[in-house]
Formats: sequence, structure tokens, C-alpha cells
Amino acid sequence: MTDVFTDLDFAKLDISRQSRTGAAETIYCAGKTKEQLLKILQTFKEKNISVLGTRCSVEQFEFLCEHGVKAEYDELSKILIYSCGQTNKLYGKIAVCCAGTADLPVAEEAAKTAAFMGAEVCRYFDVGVAGIHRLFAKLEDIRQADVIIAVAGMEGALAGVLAGLVSAPVIAVPTSVGYGASFGGLAPLLTMLNSCAEGVSVVNIDNGFGAAVSACRILRRIKK
Amino acid sequence: MTDVFTDLDFAKLDISRQSRTGAAETIYCAGKTKEQLLKILQTFKEKNISVLGTRCSVEQFEFLCEHGVKAEYDELSKILIYSCGQTNKLYGKIAVCCAGTADLPVAEEAAKTAAFMGAEVCRYFDVGVAGIHRLFAKLEDIRQADVIIAVAGMEGALAGVLAGLVSAPVIAVPTSVGYGASFGGLAPLLTMLNSCAEGVSVVNIDNGFGAAVSACRILRRIKK
Amino acid sequence: MTDVFTDLDFAKLDISRQSRTGAAETIYCAGKTKEQLLKILQTFKEKNISVLGTRCSVEQFEFLCEHGVKAEYDELSKILIYSCGQTNKLYGKIAVCCAGTADLPVAEEAAKTAAFMGAEVCRYFDVGVAGIHRLFAKLEDIRQADVIIAVAGMEGALAGVLAGLVSAPVIAVPTSVGYGASFGGLAPLLTMLNSCAEGVSVVNIDNGFGAAVSACRILRRIKK
Amino acid sequence: MTDVFTDLDFAKLDISRQSRTGAAETIYCAGKTKEQLLKILQTFKEKNISVLGTRCSVEQFEFLCEHGVKAEYDELSKILIYSCGQTNKLYGKIAVCCAGTADLPVAEEAAKTAAFMGAEVCRYFDVGVAGIHRLFAKLEDIRQADVIIAVAGMEGALAGVLAGLVSAPVIAVPTSVGYGASFGGLAPLLTMLNSCAEGVSVVNIDNGFGAAVSACRILRRIKK
Amino acid sequence: MTDVFTDLDFAKLDISRQSRTGAAETIYCAGKTKEQLLKILQTFKEKNISVLGTRCSVEQFEFLCEHGVKAEYDELSKILIYSCGQTNKLYGKIAVCCAGTADLPVAEEAAKTAAFMGAEVCRYFDVGVAGIHRLFAKLEDIRQADVIIAVAGMEGALAGVLAGLVSAPVIAVPTSVGYGASFGGLAPLLTMLNSCAEGVSVVNIDNGFGAAVSACRILRRIKK
Amino acid sequence: MTDVFTDLDFAKLDISRQSRTGAAETIYCAGKTKEQLLKILQTFKEKNISVLGTRCSVEQFEFLCEHGVKAEYDELSKILIYSCGQTNKLYGKIAVCCAGTADLPVAEEAAKTAAFMGAEVCRYFDVGVAGIHRLFAKLEDIRQADVIIAVAGMEGALAGVLAGLVSAPVIAVPTSVGYGASFGGLAPLLTMLNSCAEGVSVVNIDNGFGAAVSACRILRRIKK
Amino acid sequence: MTDVFTDLDFAKLDISRQSRTGAAETIYCAGKTKEQLLKILQTFKEKNISVLGTRCSVEQFEFLCEHGVKAEYDELSKILIYSCGQTNKLYGKIAVCCAGTADLPVAEEAAKTAAFMGAEVCRYFDVGVAGIHRLFAKLEDIRQADVIIAVAGMEGALAGVLAGLVSAPVIAVPTSVGYGASFGGLAPLLTMLNSCAEGVSVVNIDNGFGAAVSACRILRRIKK
Amino acid sequence: MTDVFTDLDFAKLDISRQSRTGAAETIYCAGKTKEQLLKILQTFKEKNISVLGTRCSVEQFEFLCEHGVKAEYDELSKILIYSCGQTNKLYGKIAVCCAGTADLPVAEEAAKTAAFMGAEVCRYFDVGVAGIHRLFAKLEDIRQADVIIAVAGMEGALAGVLAGLVSAPVIAVPTSVGYGASFGGLAPLLTMLNSCAEGVSVVNIDNGFGAAVSACRILRRIKK
Repeated sequence: MTDVFTDLDFAKLDISRQSRTGAAETIYCAGKTKEQLLKILQTFKEKNISVLGTRCSVEQFEFLCEHGVKAEYDELSKILIYSCGQTNKLYGKIAVCCAGTADLPVAEEAAKTAAFMGAEVCRYFDVGVAGIHRLFAKLEDIRQADVIIAVAGMEGALAGVLAGLVSAPVIAVPTSVGYGASFGGLAPLLTMLNSCAEGVSVVNIDNGFGAAVSACRILRRIKK
Repeated sequence: MTDVFTDLDFAKLDISRQSRTGAAETIYCAGKTKEQLLKILQTFKEKNISVLGTRCSVEQFEFLCEHGVKAEYDELSKILIYSCGQTNKLYGKIAVCCAGTADLPVAEEAAKTAAFMGAEVCRYFDVGVAGIHRLFAKLEDIRQADVIIAVAGMEGALAGVLAGLVSAPVIAVPTSVGYGASFGGLAPLLTMLNSCAEGVSVVNIDNGFGAAVSACRILRRIKK
Repeated sequence: MTDVFTDLDFAKLDISRQSRTGAAETIYCAGKTKEQLLKILQTFKEKNISVLGTRCSVEQFEFLCEHGVKAEYDELSKILIYSCGQTNKLYGKIAVCCAGTADLPVAEEAAKTAAFMGAEVCRYFDVGVAGIHRLFAKLEDIRQADVIIAVAGMEGALAGVLAGLVSAPVIAVPTSVGYGASFGGLAPLLTMLNSCAEGVSVVNIDNGFGAAVSACRILRRIKK
Repeated sequence: MTDVFTDLDFAKLDISRQSRTGAAETIYCAGKTKEQLLKILQTFKEKNISVLGTRCSVEQFEFLCEHGVKAEYDELSKILIYSCGQTNKLYGKIAVCCAGTADLPVAEEAAKTAAFMGAEVCRYFDVGVAGIHRLFAKLEDIRQADVIIAVAGMEGALAGVLAGLVSAPVIAVPTSVGYGASFGGLAPLLTMLNSCAEGVSVVNIDNGFGAAVSACRILRRIKK
Repeated sequence: MTDVFTDLDFAKLDISRQSRTGAAETIYCAGKTKEQLLKILQTFKEKNISVLGTRCSVEQFEFLCEHGVKAEYDELSKILIYSCGQTNKLYGKIAVCCAGTADLPVAEEAAKTAAFMGAEVCRYFDVGVAGIHRLFAKLEDIRQADVIIAVAGMEGALAGVLAGLVSAPVIAVPTSVGYGASFGGLAPLLTMLNSCAEGVSVVNIDNGFGAAVSACRILRRIKK
Repeated sequence: MTDVFTDLDFAKLDISRQSRTGAAETIYCAGKTKEQLLKILQTFKEKNISVLGTRCSVEQFEFLCEHGVKAEYDELSKILIYSCGQTNKLYGKIAVCCAGTADLPVAEEAAKTAAFMGAEVCRYFDVGVAGIHRLFAKLEDIRQADVIIAVAGMEGALAGVLAGLVSAPVIAVPTSVGYGASFGGLAPLLTMLNSCAEGVSVVNIDNGFGAAVSACRILRRIKK
Repeated sequence: MTDVFTDLDFAKLDISRQSRTGAAETIYCAGKTKEQLLKILQTFKEKNISVLGTRCSVEQFEFLCEHGVKAEYDELSKILIYSCGQTNKLYGKIAVCCAGTADLPVAEEAAKTAAFMGAEVCRYFDVGVAGIHRLFAKLEDIRQADVIIAVAGMEGALAGVLAGLVSAPVIAVPTSVGYGASFGGLAPLLTMLNSCAEGVSVVNIDNGFGAAVSACRILRRIKK
Repeated sequence: MTDVFTDLDFAKLDISRQSRTGAAETIYCAGKTKEQLLKILQTFKEKNISVLGTRCSVEQFEFLCEHGVKAEYDELSKILIYSCGQTNKLYGKIAVCCAGTADLPVAEEAAKTAAFMGAEVCRYFDVGVAGIHRLFAKLEDIRQADVIIAVAGMEGALAGVLAGLVSAPVIAVPTSVGYGASFGGLAPLLTMLNSCAEGVSVVNIDNGFGAAVSACRILRRIKK
């Protein structure tokens, strides 16, 4: 395995990541200028590599469009997809569960990222523990999944409750949804880290993307 | 109503509290010397007033015994009771639920305080959300209570899950049970404050006593 | 009791909440798109269910109006009320006290929520402890209430002072009013959790709504 | 699947956990009295169920021995194993990597838990990033694993560096090893949550047990 | 004014402090070895300078006694006084008020320090806001003081309530008395910093000494 | 002394404050609507009482002007002064020192408040410890003051350095000037609370007003 | 050495800093009004002193241009340079390394500051540990430097990894790049402070300027 | 350069560190068992390599002595030195300054580490800013140093004041000396990171060792 990269002026594109870590190429768009983003996408295009962008603003997307980049964009999750061909399908299934409607952007970031990487994704939205019968109504379906991504803000109890009910690994995503003593997502982050039920591991606040990558790494071990 | 107190050298005993707030007399024993505690109990004894002590150490209790104070003591909850007659019974019932075995000292502090104040108390211990079927097995019983005290450490999800399942007010007590990112009970405290289910209010970490007093204030409004 | 819900694309409306928890239907409007909110309200309208919306922006309200939803809106408290008939009256009375003029939006959220749920509400505004004679002037009135909601920002001392003066349960609402070392409401939150006076329980920062729901749960136990 | 439990006075033993979540029975020994722990182990013994205890003190272990419980105990990791027969072997391999010698107790908790649950475990200790050549010397071996558990205190950089070099999922365990601005493990916890490399998920500080359970849940999906 | 000091091996004694800042000499005993403390006291003795030691342990005091230092010691406040003559009396009066019995050590540190520096000190102990009538019973006396030191742990509301009732400056001392969400005195510290009543300034947690020095600096401006 | 107030709909004006606490009337303008502020000022005008407003926005001021309120306004400090006659002069002098140019708004809030209350104020701006010779150049002047207000952001060391050099009481005001690990003024707040030099007391972050009121309370004790 | 300064109304320009500390004159532009900044620059111009401004906004720069100040401005790093002649060259070389593209503004602030002060600067951008081969590809070059400035946000692991690979001192700059549990740069700050590798010292979050000044102080000691 | 290490069972000794980073071998003794420490020292002895141990307890040292390791030990700083020959002397001089007597253990850790690595070290103890004339009395001496290590707890202002007075780089070490709002050294850590004076970089709380290593890396660049 040779680790190589393309050296732009302001960035070193890690174009060997797929061979090294198994994951497709991705770009964190926040904090990059429109011009930098354009140059990066043009480089991937030249190399005929598909790429997923996260936290892409509408302004960034429109600038790319104006300069001839043909990409898909989802405003809710702020996901940008530049695709130049088919993805290898992964075995197994990921369930993306979220507690409330306000958690949708993060849940969709997870779902779209996983789908881009080749996973089969099932969505179970608004199944938070405040009305736990909604979760139980979907439980048998959720139990079919190989990995569960549990997205929740406010108190963040969904992940722990789920982990006590299923046998698959649960990847918990705290969100910044809430106010006051949520402290920007600190509350559900701590809840999830302190889960009494076993089998929960946690990613950064609002990091649907990271949860999806971890989930796909798991799927890649199945029937390898 | 006349607000009076007895002025010891180091303390002003608030002996009119019962008439003002309805609650029996109580002492927070931690941070008081054995001699101070003895003098306080002797004063109440002289005035023929029952009193409950919280966070009483074994050393404090033994010192009181050696000096002729006849009181009951529970080592688990660190509750001291000096009783000089019967308590008025309150109408209604309090359910004290706790998530795990390690939460017992706090749950018992709540249960014993409420009983001292005249409430009927039912205990539902080790019903945490990690094995949620244990909670459901007791749910119909819990629904009979007029107030629910939910005691939980670690992730603290019990209060919110309960509040979504019952119609009574839920008073949540976070405990310092846990380690690492529990940060001494901060995690369940934030969980409970951010509960998605309505009807939860929260007291200080490990404050079973305070939860019981609030619960008894509620019972006192019933059939007044 | 059958727990049911209506499954919209992005939300599962918990339309059995009233039978399960006793509380009327409510929506947390923040974090929902205008289109989602409209669809939710239309669903409740079809089912002839009254509903209260909290943290509803002017933009959301205007969008609803433009699309034919006939609802009341209070800009100060950001409360939206869609009513389709009379509410059952609750027995007992709730006193909503607030420390300063800047706490009014939270206090009104509490007062309007409680009124929507059928409670009799008395308001005592600007009675903070900095000029404690203002509180004493109203004390006899406040003592008539069955539950007291104490709303305060900055130092948040109102709840504890009140709890020492009355026999009713006190539900404390810290607010984000203040600056600097208030840290967004952390200061009054900690004050209230550490109240020396017994009988105080606390809800999330700025959560007037939650305090009102807890208060109404208490009223529902009276003369049941 | 029927969810059942055994109701002791102070605990409800979740003896259906294995069928529900796939994991063997476990006990968190901290915060339980010696008598409670003995009673729990006797119950499992009667039911002929193997069980793993975490955070078991020497005193607790000796008490169990004195009362006839035949169990293995490892003082470093504080793991207690009561075994009554063979475990089902899991497919796949777990690499447990740790940054420094002081992280060994946590790493061993992870390794012993995973082994108890049937996993093949390889240990790579003292491979922290301060002397990164030590990590590279073991990298090819580590790449053979299906799941990697990365245990690190102080700065906690090991997990992120590893995740950039391998294709397996990385479960990161921050430890409380360090001093000063480590703030009891907060520093490596935040480092791991903010990992730039994808594929890292995190468990509570010092929670080697939880990491192992998550890792075994992953292994259970392989060749199912 | 010449600023001079005596250079010991491990310390530079600031023996010109009195002329520069007006305050008597003081030593912070915590963190000094018994031998260092002895040497410092011997130096002051040689120079015939009175000195006050704070946070002096019983062990330190006994070591000094054994080596011939004739000093007074108060175990409650941990104040050590080595006096070699009379102090200049200050004009005016300081009221030291404290909220509860457990705050006494800090209140006494303040009172003894102020007395050592020549102030007239009046003590008003156990006048916390939970039973506010106890405070009102002493209010007219407290109003006679030129500076008020308000010592309180837990919620720390005493300082703000007092400042709204008197015209003298209030120096607030938060204490570490409390538990849970008191976070070692953070709660009353924030309460006091956010006081709605004007005229409150705050010193470090448990710093009765510092409050007394500030109060004496104020007295020194009177009738100068 | 009779404690009275004027009850507006949304506020209870504490018009007896001057007799009770000695301080002139003041309004915290932030968080009040323009209409509320106007009504408050009109009430004071009717009663012929001067009043100082803090944190008054330009918009609030312009609204008052448009409605006939004749008041002075300083945009830098956001101080509004409605004066209806002369103030009683206080004896003594206040030195307002600030560390950097960016601290000026807070320093001016202190200076203008103190002047409004009748104090003689001297300003010493940009005398921070990074170039300590600037402070020494002004030291003899500063030593003439009866109270020193030390305003500083970033590291906030000015207060402690000053307190070691003068004999007057020092009231420290941390400011939110800074970035990163200043955490909105937390850094200078902690610095000032931990001052090694004696004689420092601290007010809330950016609270120049509070420092001035405390300083004036001190001046009022001089030659009383 | 005479310490002098120029006293403007709102600022005391520390024009002797170069002789005292060896560093060129600099201005922190944030928090200064445009008029203040202009006056400061005109003063330096009159004295024929070069000066570097940090955190200068576009608006500030344009105002200076309109008023005849001839200065260079870099929008990315917000560095303003007013130069009136050549700088003394420093011996030795500074390597400025940054982890990601979003860290560029901070890295450039460091690089431009160091260049202004006379240092030779080499830039190594986007060499974060997520793709560590990018760092190794540049390692031999980086090892030529006399001081290394390591700029990184998110997990901030770059500084520690570098310090284990080189013999030069490493000055670490955490950045606020990231989201969620980065808490505005707290995460990389703690990472860097807890670096297992020796030889790392840390400056404030986003403080590229400070790192450069420290680095130049080091260079000034070489071949002195 | 070949990076090699010796693989013990529990540790991989980084015996090529000197050639890679220039620093002598060191061991962090805390968290290692006595047996592990003995084995490590025996390994270094066999290879004839000098080594410095930090945070070595008296018990660890005595165990080493009993097993024939001939090493020096300083109880104050907890430094263990096993020396097998002369050290290369470094050019230049390091000034270790500390604010108070209680900071001595950390200051000595720095001083002894630097001396072990071949530096000339001058100590300036108890020169904190509370009595700033003590610092000025030593200033000309301190200015002769090539690197200054500034050790301070409580408010931690020493580093910033020094940096404004000298031209050498200042490495700041916050200590955990203090109480209350020092929060274990957080206060001086923040102070030092927010230093207004340029030229300060900071290491972990109580990390005298790290400061010394950084200082020696600087000295190694002089006259190389």
C-alpha cells in the first residue's frame, strides 16, 4: 500500500484514504473558502473519484454550480455528493433512529453518508423516549439492523434505552437540539457516555457523518 | 403566624417552621460538630418536638447515644430520627423508584424522610432503563402513586421515561453514582433537566431528602 | 389504555398523551420548519384536538395564518394556542412569581401554559429579593396558591426565599436573564438546586412551559 | 422472547439479557455491599449462569471467597469471573492497544471482558504517539483485527492516529491517567470525540468494559 | 517609602507591607512545611512584628509550640496569632453574618482576622434566607455596621438579600459548604457575583481572611 | 423607614431605595421593551426623581427622545442619565483604572455611575501590567484615591498588582475583552478571585456599574 | 534603559517595548474604534516606527486607507503591516505547520508575524494526523527548523506527534476550528497541554501571533 | 536515524529518544507499580543510560534502594535521578522563578530536570506580584537568562508581568496551589494563556518537568 496525496497550495488531498481505511473520499466543507472547495472538487473530478461533502452551505453549493460542478445537494443535511460512478454495495443494514423532528438534519447526515458509502439504510424518526410506545412500535424492525445509529438531543436517552433492547452495536450521536442546560449538546453527550446499557459508543455532538463512517466500517467486516 | 426561633450560640433553631411551611423539623447534620448536634437535639427534646436528621455519620450517632439521646438511625441512608410522638398522616401515596442498587442510599433517604413526614411510601428499586422490562413489570403499581420520586445516577434516564408513562408529577433526584464523565452526578442532573417528557422537576444531586419534602408538600394539598 | 400515534413523514404525533399522562397536546415549535408545523397543526385540527405550541416564532405564526390556521399567538411568551373547544377546569390555583421585568417572557410562558391546561393562575411579577418588601407586600396572596412557580434569572434567589415562607410546593425556573458570570442561566440554576429552604424543585433554564405542566400535574391530584 | 428477571430485595437480576442483547451476564460491583454481591453471585450460581464482575475490590473478592464462591480475580483490572462452563466463541479478532503503562488497568478490563465473551484478543501495550515508531512497528499486526480498542489517557491522541491508519472500526477509551489539565480524563475524552480521522467512536472515561461489549456486539455480526 | 523584604532561603518576607498597604503582616500557612513556618515566625519575632497565620493545621501549631513559639490558635477557624504588642484600633464596625452553622469556620476566619487588624466586630450567625425572620430579627443591629461581611454556602443568597436592606458595602464570601451541584462553592460564588441588589463585591470561596482585609481597608478610610 | 414602591403593570419601581440603601435610583435597561422603559422614566419624572440607566441601547435612547424624555446618553458606556436636579456630593475620591483600550466601555460605565452618585472620579486608562512602567508612572496619583476600581480583561492581573501597591480597597471588574481561553471573561474573573495580594473584592464580568455602587457605599461611610 | 510611552487620550503607547523586550511594536486592533486605530497609527508614523496590527477588520483597514495610512493588509489572517523601513533579520528558521485547511487563518497570522519580526518562515499546511503520511513526507524538512509552531483545531494531536519526532521546541496553537465537543477550541487546548511527548508549550486558542512572538524570542537567543 | 525500543512486557522503552529528540531518557513514575519501575531502571542500567524519574513516591524510591538501585532522590520535587556518567553541558542559562513558597515543589522539579539535562539554572523563589518590589530587586539578574520558567499558582500573574519586562522567552507553569475558585490550577492556567504581554507559552498544571524540557530544547539551539 502506498500512501499518496495531491498537494494543492492550501490542502493535501488524501487520495489514498480509500485503500488505507476503506472509506470513500470526503470533504469537511465548513471553514473552506468557495474557491478552495471548487479547486478540491475539480481535482477529484480530474482523478475520477467520487466524493462526499459535509456541512456544505447553500452559498458554497451555488458557487460550485456556477463553475460547472455537477453535484447533488441536500439542504436539510447540508450534504453535497459528487458522484462519478457506482459505489460498492456493503452487506448488512443500518438503522438510523432519531428522537425528535428537530434532530432530522443530523439523522439525515448520517443516513445520506451511509448510503453514499454503499450501505442499506432504514430510517426511524421521532421515536424518542418521551412517548416510548412509538419506539416499541418499530422495535422489531430496528432489531433487524446490523448497526444502529441513535440520534438524540435534549436528554439523549434514546441510545441507552435502545441498547438495552437490541443485540446490535449502537452508535450514539448527541445533537445540539435543546436549550438552557443542554449547553449546546453537552447534556445528551454525557447521557450517552454514561449509558447504563452496554453496547453504546458515542461520536461528537451533531456528528452524523462520523457515526455513519463508523457504522460502515462495521458493515465492511461482515462476510468479508 | 409568629415566626420565632431559639438562639443557641452557633445556631438559630427555626422552631416555627412547621407552622410556616407545614414541614416537620429537620437538621442537616453534615458540617456540625458532635457537640453542636447534641445541643440541638437536646433543645428539641426539651420543647418536645420530633426531628429528622440527614447525613448523620455513625460517629455523630454514637456520640448522641453515649449522651443519652434516644434516636433511631439507618446507616444506609444516614437518616437519624428523634421522635416524640405520632405524626399526622398525609393523604395520598409516594412511589420512590430507583434505577440501580447503588442508588439505594439516596432512595432510602427519600423514602424514610417521606415516611417520617406522614406519607405512605412504596419502593420500586432497580428499575433502570437498561432493562426496561423491569420497569414495565411494575408500571401499573407505580401509576397508583400521587407523586413519583425517580432516583438515578449514571445516565439518569429513568425520570424522563417514567414521566412519559404516568400522569403524576415526577420529582427527579440525580445521584453521584457513576464514574468518569458522570462528573459527580452532573450527567444525570443535566439529563433530568433536559427531559423531553413533561412533568419532571429536579432537585440537587443525591438530595433524596429534598425530593421527599417537595413530594410531601404536594400531598398536603390533597383533600385539604 | 391504548397508546397510539399518527405517523407523519417527519414526526410521530403522540395523540394518546392526554389519556396516558393527563396533559393536553403540545408542540415544541423551535427547530421545526414552517411546513412541518403547518402539517402538524392540520393533523390536530382534523382530529379536533386543541394544542399548545411553545417557542413559536413570528414567522412561523404568520405562515400558519397565511395557510388558514386560526390560532392565537402571544409574541412576548411565543405561545401559540390552537383551541377547538373548552378545556376541563382544574381545581386549585397556581401563583406565577417572577423576580424582574426581564423574566416576563418565561413567566408568561408558564402562566399561559397553565391557563391553557385549565388552571387558575395568579401573576406576581417583579418581586425579586433585591427589594424584598415588594415580595412581602404580596406574600399573603401568594400563600393562597396550591403551587408556586418562581421564575428568576441573575442570582435566582427568589425560589429559595419563597420556599421558606410558604407551605406549597415551589417549582423554580431559572432564566437566562443576566450577563457575564450568569453563564446563560447556569448561575440561577445552581442557586435553585442548592436552595437551603426545603420544598423547591427545578426545571430547565427558561422552561416556563415545563414548570406549568408539573404544576398542573399537581393540581390534577387535588380532589380527584 | 420473554423478558424476565429475578427479584432480590435490592436488585432485579436481568437474567434474560443474553437472549435480548446477546451479551453474557455482568455485574458492576462498585457501590454494592459485600452481602449484596454475594447474594447476586449465589443467585447466578443457582441458575448455572456465568457472570463477569467489573470494578470488584479486593475486599469484595475476599468476602466472596470466604463464603464459598469459586471465582477468578485479577487485581490489576479488578475483573471478577465466575464461570460455570464454556463460552461460545465469537468469530473475528479484537486488538486492544494502549498508549502507556499507566493505562494498563483499563486496557486489561477491556481485554478480559472481551475474552470472557468469547473473542480472540491481541494486546498492543505502550504504543502511544509520543514515540510513534513503536506504533508503526506493530501496525501490520493491528491491521489484522476486526475491531480496535484504543485506550489512552493524557492527550488521548492514539485513537485518532490509529483510525487514520486502519480500516476497522476504532472504539476509543479515554482514561483518567494524567494530572492537571487532564481534569480526570476530560482531556482525552474531548480529543477522541473531536478526532479528525473518521471511524472513531468513544465510551466513558476508564470504561474498558463498555468498549469490549461494543466490540463483541460487532464481532457477533460477522458470519452470523 | 522604601520597599524592603527579608530573604530566607525559600521565602522573601514582605516586611514593608504594613507601610505600603496599611495591613498587618500575615502568613498563608497551608503548603508550607513546619520547618519553614517556624523559621518565618522566628524572623518576625526577631523583628518584633505581630503576625497572623491563616489555614494553620493543628500539626503546624503543635510543632511551633514545641519549638518555643508562643502563639494563640483557634482550631475552628485555623487562625494562628503571634502578637507582640497592641494593635492600632480602627474606627467603625464590621458585621460578620453567616447563613448556617456549617459556615462558621469561614465566618470566624473573617471575624478573627478583622479583630487582629483592630476592627470592632459583631457576629450574626445562622441568619440564612431559608428562615428569613431570623435575619429580620437582627436587621436593625446589622444596619449599624460600616461594612458587612456575608458568608454563605449552598445557594449563597444571603449577600444579595442583605445588600437590598442596608446602605453599607457588603463583602460576600461564598463557602464550600454544600454538596452535589454546589460544585465546591461554585454555586454560591455565581449567586453572589450575579446579585441583583447593588453594593455586593465578592472574594474567593472560603476566603474569610480576604473579606476581612478588604473590610479593614474600608474602615481605614473613615475619619482618616 | 417605610419601604414603598410604585406598581406598574410589568414592574414594581423601588422608589424607596435611596432611603433604604443610600443609592440613587437606577434602571437596568437591557431586556426591557422601549415602551416599558418609557413608562418607567415617565414615572420617575412625575415623582421628580433622578435616575441612571445602564446598558441602554441607542434604539432605546432614540425612542425616549422621540417621546419627549430629556436625558443624556453616552454611547460608549451605554449609560443614560435622567437628571432632575443636583446630586449630593460624596467625600473622598475614586480611581478608575483600566488595563487596555478595549476595556474602556466598562471603565466608563463605572466612572459615569460613580460621578452620577456624587463621587469625585479620576481615570487612569491603559495601565495594564504588560507594560508595567505605565502603571508606575501613575502610581502616586492612584494612591491618593479612597477606593480603586480596577477594570481588566484577558489575564486580569491589574487588580492584584495594584492591591499590593496601595492601601485603599480595590474593587476588581473582570471584562469580557479577550478571546479563546478567556471564555467570555471567566479567565480574568478567576484571576481576580485568586489574587495573592489582599484587599481585592470582585464584581460580575463587565459590571462597571456594580463596582461604582460598591465604591460609593464605601465613600458614604467617610466623614459621615 | 528608560521605559517611556506616549499618552493618547484612550491609550498609552508602549514605544519602549522594543528596547525592553526585543520585539517590534504591535497593536491588537479588535475592540478599538476606527478613530482610535487611526490615531495610534499616525502616532507611530510620526515617530517613524514600524508596527504590526492583528485582528484588523476589513472595515478598519479601509478606514485607515481613506485617511491616508499606507499599510499592507492580508484578509485571511487579518494582519495589518505598517512598515517604515527594513527589519533586522533573525538567525534561524521557524516551521509553521497546520493540521487542516480551516486552520490557515491562524497559521498565517503566525507566519506573517514571524516574518515581520525578521524570521525565516517555512509553511507546512494540512499535515494533520488523520493522514499521517502527509506529515512524514515533510518531516525531514521540518526537522531543519529551530522552532516549530504547530497549529491545530479539532483534536489538536499534531503538536504532540511532532514533538515526539523532532528535537526543536514546539509551540502549540489550538484553534477554534471544529464544532460540538470542541467547545470553541477547548478540546485541542487540553490535548496540547496534556501532550505525552515532551517539548510542547502552548499559547491561547487562535493565538498565532503569540506563538510567533515566542518563537522569535527564541531565535533572538541564537548566535547572539 | 534508527528508531528503536526495548520491549518489556508492560512497556516499550523508547531508548532512541535522545538521538531523535535530543532529550535524555525520562520516566513518569506515577501510575507504575514498584516492580515495573524496578525492571525499567534495571534495563536502563544494563544499557548504561542515565535516566530521570518524575513524580516518584517515597515508597517507590525505597523499593528501588532495597533492590540495589543506586539513585538520588529529592523528596520535595519527587525527582529520582539514576546517573551513569556525565551529561553534556548546554550553553546558556535558565532562570526558574516562582511566585510563592508553596510553589517550590514544582519549581524544583523544573530546576532539577533542567540541571540533569545539562543546563545552568538560577533560582528566584517567592517573587510573586503581590509584593512586586521583590521581583524588581532580582530583575537585572533574571534578565541575564536565555529562557525564563515562571511558576505560579493562585492568580498566576507572574508569567505575564515578567514577559513584559524581559526579552527572553517565558515558559509559564501554572500550579495547583490555591483553593476555592483556583479549581485545581485552572485559574492560573487561564491567566497565563490570556497573558497580555507577548512571549509567554504555557505547559500543563504542575508540569515543571515539561517546562524544563522545553527550555532545554531552546538552549540546544544556541551556538549549535
